Amino acid sequence: MKTELICVGTELLSGKLNTNACFVGEQLSSIGLDLSFVTTVGDSPADMRVAVATALGRSQIIILTGGLGPTFDDLTREAVAAALGRPLVVNAHALASIKEFFSKRAVAMPNINEVQAQVIEGAVLLPNPAGTAPGQMIDYQKAKIFLLPGPPREMQAMFDASVFPLLKKYETRIKKTFTLHIFGMGESLVDEKIRSVIEAERAMEADTVSFTILAHQMVVDIRASVTHRDEMIVDEIMRTLKHEFYEILGDAIYGENDDSLESVVGSLLGKHHATLSLAESCTGGLVAHRITNVAGSSLYFKQGVIAYANDAKQTLLGVNAATIEKFGAVSAETAREMALGARKIAASDYAISLTGIAGPTGGTQEKPAGLVYIGIVGPAFEKVAAHRFIGNRLEIRERAANMALDMLRRELMHAAPRAGAKRSTHG
Amino acid sequence: MKTELICVGTELLSGKLNTNACFVGEQLSSIGLDLSFVTTVGDSPADMRVAVATALGRSQIIILTGGLGPTFDDLTREAVAAALGRPLVVNAHALASIKEFFSKRAVAMPNINEVQAQVIEGAVLLPNPAGTAPGQMIDYQKAKIFLLPGPPREMQAMFDASVFPLLKKYETRIKKTFTLHIFGMGESLVDEKIRSVIEAERAMEADTVSFTILAHQMVVDIRASVTHRDEMIVDEIMRTLKHEFYEILGDAIYGENDDSLESVVGSLLGKHHATLSLAESCTGGLVAHRITNVAGSSLYFKQGVIAYANDAKQTLLGVNAATIEKFGAVSAETAREMALGARKIAASDYAISLTGIAGPTGGTQEKPAGLVYIGIVGPAFEKVAAHRFIGNRLEIRERAANMALDMLRRELMHAAPRAGAKRSTHG
Repeated sequence: MKTELICVGTELLSGKLNTNACFVGEQLSSIGLDLSFVTTVGDSPADMRVAVATALGRSQIIILTGGLGPTFDDLTREAVAAALGRPLVVNAHALASIKEFFSKRAVAMPNINEVQAQVIEGAVLLPNPAGTAPGQMIDYQKAKIFLLPGPPREMQAMFDASVFPLLKKYETRIKKTFTLHIFGMGESLVDEKIRSVIEAERAMEADTVSFTILAHQMVVDIRASVTHRDEMIVDEIMRTLKHEFYEILGDAIYGENDDSLESVVGSLLGKHHATLSLAESCTGGLVAHRITNVAGSSLYFKQGVIAYANDAKQTLLGVNAATIEKFGAVSAETAREMALGARKIAASDYAISLTGIAGPTGGTQEKPAGLVYIGIVGPAFEKVAAHRFIGNRLEIRERAANMALDMLRRELMHAAPRAGAKRSTHG
Repeated sequence: MKTELICVGTELLSGKLNTNACFVGEQLSSIGLDLSFVTTVGDSPADMRVAVATALGRSQIIILTGGLGPTFDDLTREAVAAALGRPLVVNAHALASIKEFFSKRAVAMPNINEVQAQVIEGAVLLPNPAGTAPGQMIDYQKAKIFLLPGPPREMQAMFDASVFPLLKKYETRIKKTFTLHIFGMGESLVDEKIRSVIEAERAMEADTVSFTILAHQMVVDIRASVTHRDEMIVDEIMRTLKHEFYEILGDAIYGENDDSLESVVGSLLGKHHATLSLAESCTGGLVAHRITNVAGSSLYFKQGVIAYANDAKQTLLGVNAATIEKFGAVSAETAREMALGARKIAASDYAISLTGIAGPTGGTQEKPAGLVYIGIVGPAFEKVAAHRFIGNRLEIRERAANMALDMLRRELMHAAPRAGAKRSTHG
């Protein structure tokens, strides 16, 4: 049985990220109903009809997102009705729900919202917990077709409430997936190292296990999926594979699945009852943003300083004017003083500093764009490293942030628990 | 003539964002060769063959990305060769280039990279300025097929160098697009306000003008595309449309095209020769990150403080302990003192502060998750506003950042040029 997603929206064809495809793909993958195709199509009824017809020829579960709103470019209802050769009818129940949505918010329903009550003949309505556009489920020949709204919040709420529980019944095999995240090793090297494991596994369990390997801003991900009717077999293979990967890659693996460098660093800080402060220049708040994206980070993150101007490095962090004068704002010496200053003023256990040239301008032959000094200081050590990152401004900033977080991670992994460490007031 | 993109990669079907589709869509759109379909397909040769066959049945330009690497899951070469019924042959020139890539970096070529020298019979090689996998261009019946690598840097470099210049010749009509970005008005309201313009335009120029409207984290975008053989007509329609939208929406339009709230705020600060500092709590560095994403922001951004812990609000920003004690860290009073403190210690002209509850935990009945106080201070004013944002942790942070930037934008728009303003040392 093939499952397929059709995302409707001209904006998705001309530069907008398709986050709905991510969400649906991830959810379906978790129950072994992997998507075979995602088709993105514009707000063109003719192209939508082609996409639906193509999907009907190869897939049994077809999910459409987008184009159910009230505005002029919301044409999915009409196009799918035409593709299936069925009429659209106004559904009184849907109309009442839409009216209720507005009256609850003490707003009069705009006339344009009436069109959202049109449903394809024979469709089952799917309630929209987060908006006005109801979804629809249609049985057509051997296929099941779902129409979901485009705004991610509405789509996700409806998917969780109405689509996921129903589709879960379709797949009787168990599928489990794990992802290992690696930092400090290139994609080709990771591939070479794990190739023998993958080939041995494939020789034994061709249909059971599948692998992908991916690189992004210096992070390499290995993803393995195991599918089998017997959950014990799935678990056993997962365990064996993971064990082998850890044996081969060791500390370069920084986390699994939803772990991020910032969440792993956060957990390690928590384990040590330690606190962190930051002093950023070229990354301009990105490291702080990522650290504080983690819910609960207020337990270990004390403060950050974005010392963009030179005088901020002096006034906020106590960097010596002479150091900047002699070595420059982008230098190992400045990075070191920034980290030490951040740690001192925050009275934190650890501190990270970054100073460099994110580009595209500001580079020189001696100090080119991409050059970043990272300082890490802790209770019993200080370390400064120079890195030369490639990419555009945003990539250089992401890579520098990744490197800084990984440097701290490695220090924390090997740090002894603090002797007589008292629980911090945050811990 | 239809243009279509096929993105290969199992990871794109199970949760990874497809950034290549954005890039290609945006580039093609700029020359009027809008994508009609984007199909994402996994590393399955059978599904790839189906996707290629489907594309050959409806499109004349077919671009594939991904699956040209050296690793076990790179199967695009084989699958496309099979779909076209042509053999793969080793290309000596490609092999030499790959070997050169490694020797330049003083690294021995891993054996696995040899497979990257296989090309489909009759293909023209496309050089890879940024990696080892060469691209391929194949004329097949009436279609032109491009095979590009998957890593965005490599794909983009190859697209710019080899694909874009060639495709540019295909479209003889002129297409221009503009996007207007709006903040402070909901999507339905914007739609209602501009509906008459759109309908009038459509009645006159049905095939010439197309519109989409989109909302994201409280930003609403109107995008209009004008296509015609006569560039003067295109420009005239663009001018008229823009004028009408500005008449209707006024200051709610904060920018056009690549403008972001942070770049617009940056331009306004530059215009006033004014500087900015930040004091963030719940947004944890996001505002600073966005401000400094703008190249050249060091000219007006002085410094930022992420005062996550309460004592940081006191030590770094000089917020009174009594204020936090009496009103709480999440309060209008604390937001006000944070902004005033940030402005003072940075000696900047303007300062923004944010303090709130990003959630998911930490909320109370009185101060629920999503409640954010934003303070804006300048040479002659101070302002604090309370907002209640909906969404998850990351959405609340993004929305709060958008709101804060828009508040400052509106102040700067209406601020008189500073009397006797001397050019700042940064300006």
